[in-house]
Amino acid sequence: MRVELINTGTELLMGRVLNIHQQWLGQQLALAGYELGFQQTIPDNGEVIQAAVRDSISRCELIIVTGGLGPTSDDITRERIAELLEAPLEEHAETRQRIVSRFKNRNRSIPNAVMGQALVPQGAKVLPNDYGTAPGLMMQTCKGWLILLPGPPRELHPMYINHVAPILAKELPPEKPLSTRTFKTMGIGESSVEELISEPLNELIASGLRIGYCARMGEVDVRLTACGAKALSLIKQGEETVRKRVGKYIYGVDDDLLEGMVVRVLTERKESLVVAESCTGGLLSHRITNVPGSSSVFLAGYCTYSNESKENTLGVLSESIDSDGAVSERVAREMAEGARLRHGADYALATTGIAGPTGGTKEKPVGTVFIALATPQGTEVMKECNRSDRETFKIVTTQQALNLLRQVIEG
Amino acid sequence: MRVELINTGTELLMGRVLNIHQQWLGQQLALAGYELGFQQTIPDNGEVIQAAVRDSISRCELIIVTGGLGPTSDDITRERIAELLEAPLEEHAETRQRIVSRFKNRNRSIPNAVMGQALVPQGAKVLPNDYGTAPGLMMQTCKGWLILLPGPPRELHPMYINHVAPILAKELPPEKPLSTRTFKTMGIGESSVEELISEPLNELIASGLRIGYCARMGEVDVRLTACGAKALSLIKQGEETVRKRVGKYIYGVDDDLLEGMVVRVLTERKESLVVAESCTGGLLSHRITNVPGSSSVFLAGYCTYSNESKENTLGVLSESIDSDGAVSERVAREMAEGARLRHGADYALATTGIAGPTGGTKEKPVGTVFIALATPQGTEVMKECNRSDRETFKIVTTQQALNLLRQVIEG
Repeated sequence: MRVELINTGTELLMGRVLNIHQQWLGQQLALAGYELGFQQTIPDNGEVIQAAVRDSISRCELIIVTGGLGPTSDDITRERIAELLEAPLEEHAETRQRIVSRFKNRNRSIPNAVMGQALVPQGAKVLPNDYGTAPGLMMQTCKGWLILLPGPPRELHPMYINHVAPILAKELPPEKPLSTRTFKTMGIGESSVEELISEPLNELIASGLRIGYCARMGEVDVRLTACGAKALSLIKQGEETVRKRVGKYIYGVDDDLLEGMVVRVLTERKESLVVAESCTGGLLSHRITNVPGSSSVFLAGYCTYSNESKENTLGVLSESIDSDGAVSERVAREMAEGARLRHGADYALATTGIAGPTGGTKEKPVGTVFIALATPQGTEVMKECNRSDRETFKIVTTQQALNLLRQVIEG
Repeated sequence: MRVELINTGTELLMGRVLNIHQQWLGQQLALAGYELGFQQTIPDNGEVIQAAVRDSISRCELIIVTGGLGPTSDDITRERIAELLEAPLEEHAETRQRIVSRFKNRNRSIPNAVMGQALVPQGAKVLPNDYGTAPGLMMQTCKGWLILLPGPPRELHPMYINHVAPILAKELPPEKPLSTRTFKTMGIGESSVEELISEPLNELIASGLRIGYCARMGEVDVRLTACGAKALSLIKQGEETVRKRVGKYIYGVDDDLLEGMVVRVLTERKESLVVAESCTGGLLSHRITNVPGSSSVFLAGYCTYSNESKENTLGVLSESIDSDGAVSERVAREMAEGARLRHGADYALATTGIAGPTGGTKEKPVGTVFIALATPQGTEVMKECNRSDRETFKIVTTQQALNLLRQVIEG
């Protein structure tokens, strides 16, 4: 079964908007056993949209098109695809009613263009939009289904989960469902991982197991994929080999996020956490508080950017800053211990480093960072050098900090 | 001139990795006057890669291919494209030396597979990689250039800026350079913006001006684009109309980020800022500290998730929490005023709300948030309802908070 994704939107091609649909829909499809084979982004141009959809229809069982269903003049996907499929647009009474109520509830008058969104191609299934005005549409093609979804993620996500996924499971179940499992490693390079695991996996590969690698700063993903009836058993055997050879570097699988793992374990252990950040500037708090339920373990976060706030808020000694500098093992330790004491928390994480682009010295170049973890058993401090741009530095450093905590609480 | 982007990587199609190349390269190209016409993502499959590149070469002057240059077995872009172009791979001595030194400097032994990255197609320009092992490659085609870049963004970005952009400017300058200007609005719907500006712009549109709209939660971008010699004048005239009709909703243009604007104005005014966050959980601090130089205005951030930390750290009255609840105008006000006083800062922003998915009540449903700004002239508190998923809620709320501060300090 061939599955393709078409993202429409000149704003995507010009880089005005980040295309997150490819990742999100790719994940949803993979979870349900479909393999997304091809994705393309095309401009808001009627002929280009028609040509792309026509080609996809001729070769695919499932096509998802995003964007261009809204009310403005550059939203032309609905009209142009109706034209291509020779399905005249008709008003859909329920959608009209939904739009009218939506504006009424907000005490807003209805701009003229908005009602165009109640027009749908004859014969299309209408997918209600619970978070916006434009409905989604599902149309049968010669080989399968063509699905049109609105561009805004907060509208697309619930529409896909609540309306599209159940219909697909019923109408177009994958023939040879794809299975996949990804192992997330830290602390080992991509070629070294492959050297350790590729030969022992050769036999499974000959039986249909596929391996993929993906390197990020400080991390390598190892992805095992297989199709059909033997898939789960191939992946299970592959996992045994991977764990035997590189198990100590694996911190999680599939969608595991370190912040989620840490919150889950702390919740189970009924333990609490505070963080004190300098160079990561709030990102550590942000990641932890992204986890629903984090409020039961996360007491507080400090972003002590100035030396004065490190001293007044966390009790760092001014003499430590004077003698060792704000970016030092000693200050990291005092930040973590100060934050932990202040709240009577079980654990405290602290970061202090040089995010750049300026501020580096010969002894402490840009990227230098000290990460401290204070625990009931004492404090440990780790030094890293994460040389990169400012935002990557922050991401990698919080990843290292969360992994340090994970190893201690899971250990 | 036709420009296309090909992203290789099965991990992108499976949603294991977010494709940020499309946005980043789309922006870089637009800045230099090129219009990216098409983007596609294809799996790590030799035949598919060859077919996609062959088709692009036949119709494009400029093709950028990302990914698949690394050392593992699924990195096949270099080999397959060399084969397609009938350019045998040869060892590039300088690259070999660069890779050897890189491993030597880190005291690491060189895995066998790594040296394959020193092989380059005959006749290719080699683009040095200052942040990794795989070099980029530029090859002439019948119509223009084919450029291969490594997948990791921290390698691709500096390589593009330092090596690709200068060569393109010299070898393949855009014929009719594209110009564009985007106006970022808050507080008005997409159809209402269009109703206000589309008719007055009709004459300019007839002369070649193009308009695009992009709606996000609480925001609408209006994008003006034009090509060739008249482009700048068309956009300038368009801007006058847009500003006249919806000026009061515009908070920035192009790549303006509220955090950057706020840090810039505060730096000029030599004023300082602290933040106290509950529901935004550190994201406000994170955004502000993403701005290089923010340390000169940003003193500290508090992420006071628990009631106890609101009281002990910020001086919120326990009676305020008891009577009005932690999510209330009164607590938001006390958080901002407490944080401001504590640091003697000029401004303090505070947020308290219900990010969800749980915790909502009938009077205060999920999405309810109070945003307070304490200034030398007094404190104002704004109430919003940002009903959405947890992360979108945090993003939208920080956007509203930063815009509140921007309006006060720019005003």
